Amino acid sequence: MSDMMKCFVMHGIGKVGMVEKPIPRPGSSDAIIRTTAALICTSDTHTVAGAIGDRNGLTLGHEAVGVIHELGELAAASGLFKIGQRVAVSAITPCYACDNCQRGFSSQCGGMLGGWKFANVKDGSFAEYFHVNNAVANLAPIPDGLTDEQAAYCCDMLSTGFVAAEFANIPIGGSVAIFSQGPVGMMATVGARLRGAGLVIGVESMPNRIALAKKYGCDVIVDFTKEDPIEAILKLTGGQGVDSAIEALGSAKTFAACVSVTRPGGTISNIGYHGDGDSVPIPREAWGVGMSDKTIRTALCPGGSERMSRLLRLIETGRVDPLALTTHRFAFTDIEKAFRMMQTKEDGMIKPLISFV
Amino acid sequence: MSDMMKCFVMHGIGKVGMVEKPIPRPGSSDAIIRTTAALICTSDTHTVAGAIGDRNGLTLGHEAVGVIHELGELAAASGLFKIGQRVAVSAITPCYACDNCQRGFSSQCGGMLGGWKFANVKDGSFAEYFHVNNAVANLAPIPDGLTDEQAAYCCDMLSTGFVAAEFANIPIGGSVAIFSQGPVGMMATVGARLRGAGLVIGVESMPNRIALAKKYGCDVIVDFTKEDPIEAILKLTGGQGVDSAIEALGSAKTFAACVSVTRPGGTISNIGYHGDGDSVPIPREAWGVGMSDKTIRTALCPGGSERMSRLLRLIETGRVDPLALTTHRFAFTDIEKAFRMMQTKEDGMIKPLISFV
Amino acid sequence: MSDMMKCFVMHGIGKVGMVEKPIPRPGSSDAIIRTTAALICTSDTHTVAGAIGDRNGLTLGHEAVGVIHELGELAAASGLFKIGQRVAVSAITPCYACDNCQRGFSSQCGGMLGGWKFANVKDGSFAEYFHVNNAVANLAPIPDGLTDEQAAYCCDMLSTGFVAAEFANIPIGGSVAIFSQGPVGMMATVGARLRGAGLVIGVESMPNRIALAKKYGCDVIVDFTKEDPIEAILKLTGGQGVDSAIEALGSAKTFAACVSVTRPGGTISNIGYHGDGDSVPIPREAWGVGMSDKTIRTALCPGGSERMSRLLRLIETGRVDPLALTTHRFAFTDIEKAFRMMQTKEDGMIKPLISFV
Amino acid sequence: MSDMMKCFVMHGIGKVGMVEKPIPRPGSSDAIIRTTAALICTSDTHTVAGAIGDRNGLTLGHEAVGVIHELGELAAASGLFKIGQRVAVSAITPCYACDNCQRGFSSQCGGMLGGWKFANVKDGSFAEYFHVNNAVANLAPIPDGLTDEQAAYCCDMLSTGFVAAEFANIPIGGSVAIFSQGPVGMMATVGARLRGAGLVIGVESMPNRIALAKKYGCDVIVDFTKEDPIEAILKLTGGQGVDSAIEALGSAKTFAACVSVTRPGGTISNIGYHGDGDSVPIPREAWGVGMSDKTIRTALCPGGSERMSRLLRLIETGRVDPLALTTHRFAFTDIEKAFRMMQTKEDGMIKPLISFV
Repeated sequence: MSDMMKCFVMHGIGKVGMVEKPIPRPGSSDAIIRTTAALICTSDTHTVAGAIGDRNGLTLGHEAVGVIHELGELAAASGLFKIGQRVAVSAITPCYACDNCQRGFSSQCGGMLGGWKFANVKDGSFAEYFHVNNAVANLAPIPDGLTDEQAAYCCDMLSTGFVAAEFANIPIGGSVAIFSQGPVGMMATVGARLRGAGLVIGVESMPNRIALAKKYGCDVIVDFTKEDPIEAILKLTGGQGVDSAIEALGSAKTFAACVSVTRPGGTISNIGYHGDGDSVPIPREAWGVGMSDKTIRTALCPGGSERMSRLLRLIETGRVDPLALTTHRFAFTDIEKAFRMMQTKEDGMIKPLISFV
Repeated sequence: MSDMMKCFVMHGIGKVGMVEKPIPRPGSSDAIIRTTAALICTSDTHTVAGAIGDRNGLTLGHEAVGVIHELGELAAASGLFKIGQRVAVSAITPCYACDNCQRGFSSQCGGMLGGWKFANVKDGSFAEYFHVNNAVANLAPIPDGLTDEQAAYCCDMLSTGFVAAEFANIPIGGSVAIFSQGPVGMMATVGARLRGAGLVIGVESMPNRIALAKKYGCDVIVDFTKEDPIEAILKLTGGQGVDSAIEALGSAKTFAACVSVTRPGGTISNIGYHGDGDSVPIPREAWGVGMSDKTIRTALCPGGSERMSRLLRLIETGRVDPLALTTHRFAFTDIEKAFRMMQTKEDGMIKPLISFV
Repeated sequence: MSDMMKCFVMHGIGKVGMVEKPIPRPGSSDAIIRTTAALICTSDTHTVAGAIGDRNGLTLGHEAVGVIHELGELAAASGLFKIGQRVAVSAITPCYACDNCQRGFSSQCGGMLGGWKFANVKDGSFAEYFHVNNAVANLAPIPDGLTDEQAAYCCDMLSTGFVAAEFANIPIGGSVAIFSQGPVGMMATVGARLRGAGLVIGVESMPNRIALAKKYGCDVIVDFTKEDPIEAILKLTGGQGVDSAIEALGSAKTFAACVSVTRPGGTISNIGYHGDGDSVPIPREAWGVGMSDKTIRTALCPGGSERMSRLLRLIETGRVDPLALTTHRFAFTDIEKAFRMMQTKEDGMIKPLISFV
Repeated sequence: MSDMMKCFVMHGIGKVGMVEKPIPRPGSSDAIIRTTAALICTSDTHTVAGAIGDRNGLTLGHEAVGVIHELGELAAASGLFKIGQRVAVSAITPCYACDNCQRGFSSQCGGMLGGWKFANVKDGSFAEYFHVNNAVANLAPIPDGLTDEQAAYCCDMLSTGFVAAEFANIPIGGSVAIFSQGPVGMMATVGARLRGAGLVIGVESMPNRIALAKKYGCDVIVDFTKEDPIEAILKLTGGQGVDSAIEALGSAKTFAACVSVTRPGGTISNIGYHGDGDSVPIPREAWGVGMSDKTIRTALCPGGSERMSRLLRLIETGRVDPLALTTHRFAFTDIEKAFRMMQTKEDGMIKPLISFV
């Protein structure tokens, strides 16, 4: 067996390609996973477009599952895992020891957004093997009834989509507007249903996404190319506005719309990545001149094996079937093609599955 | 039109019957409702059995909907309602002005359990007309798409069952055990699903209830006549216990079991009415000698038009269909027969609908 | 006794003066208070400057206490009050019956900021008598040990300052930065201490305010005219930022600074009135591109007799002495002079007390 | 330097004594602390009385501070600590990686009460050196301005007393009753003041404790040997009951009293160790037959360096001075005498300080 592996990396801004790197070795608390299935995320394309700078040689990818290939000494001593076991790993892999982790904000491990390590501060998981820090806290066994593909959706799509709904503080039977029905927005839709929303309004314009968003639980779709979404949502709620709004796009305009359509005392839950400009404006009057009792929350995909286990269980007990998100399938050797399609979302691509067999 | 009406009353402990009383008149903030549909609650049978003393002449009933017959001056001046409008009224009708209401505990209006007025401190709704205090806060318009029968389930069954789940603090994808699957327990099951439970374990032994509980969302049923429920639930959760347990029976034994099956840091949510004994014991060791981070919550059916509107919406948008709970139907003139059957639950009675046409 | 009273009113934008109006009469749920003491608020000067439009003839004032002069029928029937009783009334007087009140957002009664009635949608309390809606929920008896002057500080200064701290979600022993130490900012300082802050950093430049802010509990003052407050606060917290930041000024710049100095997972609590511009910008990078787990909350002075009673108790048991805020005292006949000084804050004015004897 | 050290151990139930053991060595994530100051806890005497069985040879003690003597490889690699640095270590030392730690219940690390390791599942800190697992998460540097004695109070007294107040959910200006004013009860008193309680009622009968409890912030003391505490507390709160009650004794009777004196919607916060009987009874009627909206919470001393740092800060900035709890001082060589006095609380002992110089 070779000690080299294939990796799909960024070659500076705008460029990607396959390279060989040594198979990583674990530190004492760590694990090495042999990849079986991965998903490409729009944020991978943001990275290549330069969102976090020129990461020449960085392996991309943060949504992947696999089998345990090697365990560090402490990780092995925990007795929790065995070589060959199928595991899912969140996109976010906190240390669970630092101040922010102890405070309950493990996505901010060690500093702002610091739980995000894959394809940011270390190599990602678009590789035949990948390294996982703090294995005890970050490896979630995949239940027997689940496929690797299903499990891969827990790494980011379910965790991020659902936290949007959890932080939106939706009262049981309450109303929620979800701006954009991309894959995370659709999982926010599922999450809103799982938290008991009585009315879920999706804002979207692409026909294939509209169709899928309805399947995932939107009661109503507002097509912002056909009507003003603020007016439409106010009308749908008798002029009151929604209890909660979710920003799942990452645009200043939709963020402002979220504030505008949320009733006083309601919550705006942001999970969209805001990549442009110096600031994201809050509309002053809709914000009640700063006195409306409206709350604005934000989150970065929560990680950790305990949460991952709950997400896996939701698939296992039939609460959500993420597979309808998989519009395309590729072998790892064809990942560059998949990646190029994800950049343009051509052919109605929502999520492409990458198989490592 | 006569100014007298038929009422189904308690004639002291153990006795019931139909009498005539004057149609009530509203105070300035109040409304009078002409009843169209009502449901009998097991707690009505507790009342007749003496749970709150000898209430000779008290009209029974607290789950009813109807049309507005008369409005007090202030209620009319609000402009929110019109005569003839279909409305649902919660079993609990707080004043929304006192200290406890301001604190957010409106079910404890004016004092412990003080929001419970119908068939407790004033005549209930098993009558051709009934009186509603503080109409602005307590009358919830019934959406056009809903039948009176559907709406009647919001008065107590949905509100009580759902608050059990809301107070149970179920993490998304978490596990919950619900002790007893009577009508409130089944609505707690629906509530637990609505809050995102990943595993709902019902504890029940009656075959008709088991069948319906599965329909309403129990993933697993533990039949306590066939196995020890504590052992069974621990086994189902890999020895960890559930994140949350709901007591929907009102028995010291099941309450203790709830504490025992809940994992450290989890929540026990009690909605069962505990009618016997001086005390309800917490099992000391399962409670972690008072240091387990377990939380015990309690609730009385939350009322108010705002919550009622959200419950009605959940039926309207298809999140829950309560009608499967209606096992029997009676005209108001036959309510005594329905009541006698409810005392024994004979013929598999779960909820009997009383029609006033 | 005349049925006319003196009132201090706005004569269109920029103009004020004393006029006579009839003493108001209560509706059924209402009360009329004979004013004994009032305080002028900076927001009164905003109103006169045009913040809410040309309110020609509107009586100003929302911080006042007095004795019950007349009760409406329902208010009297409650048995809670008697004529001549000393009472305090919050600046915000919700109905406690509408949807928003039931949801727990009574400051947004009936619509955004709708709990704010005095000197906004009805005459305020700079008058010999003033009208209080929903007396049962809005009249708070003043304990015997308190002066009217002390009680007057509960109407707005304590309620608004403290809610800033309550919403800031300060962990016990945590750190908080409070931008501006005007009277509300100083009461936010007291509130932060009351919620257990371990380090309170005040941002202020005026020497008299700095001195008083230290007395009220600031551990450190950052003078923004002498150093960059963001750098200074980061330095004071070892580069981590504060757990919570409070915006008590109402400026886009200080709001942005609040976001910047708050650590990931922390809370920004806004109570400042933002009067300018279309929007209030969130600094994008300091906000973690919308993924920092930072929360932004807002509030409008919470009202209600139950809260007022707790605020009064805090003075009664010596937790806070607001009287150091009173820098000047005037008879009601001299209120115009006091008002003019409040517009410019000349002579180090912080709060002027208006006496009605 | 010898590799042996003196330890104060349990020799089976009821017996204690000094023995020699090897100085412990750290695992990769661990640290060894050279003890400088320790406190004896009443729970140490419970242990010797047999509360957790016959722990023959177990070193006692869980409240201690010292200097870093040795670091494991991973702990050293963190760069956070250096040999010789003064650190405080909570009585509870979670792993911060397991499910319960990830859930936010680190005191229940690995299982119920599992964060409690010192003098339970491993040797405690009444020794010249002690071992600390997961050093990064459990070592809190002591600020320069604090003495070792002050810091030692953070290990258990402040953390347990304060969590009682934090979990009691005291509204600002609210009322709280604290049953028993031992050292933890007094720190709960301080905690209640730090959370903004407007009225703190202590229940205690010993004159020296009454005097100190007043100094630490009780507004009123109810001496249960002179009056019925339930009646007295109801009278002090106008018949309403307190917003929150804290059980800091560990007696079924005081626990029941806590439920009885708490108003509907209020919270009972238990930190007392309940050592007797099969169950701890909830008084059924005072509990509102399970429908009073009362909440019962429980906690075990929260640990972790982040919390410890906040507790240390509260001493540093003068919010609390725990030293008044130190009634007696002993050299480590005299610890057996101190321990015997702690068993009987003779000579008015509250907390004895043990010095290791």
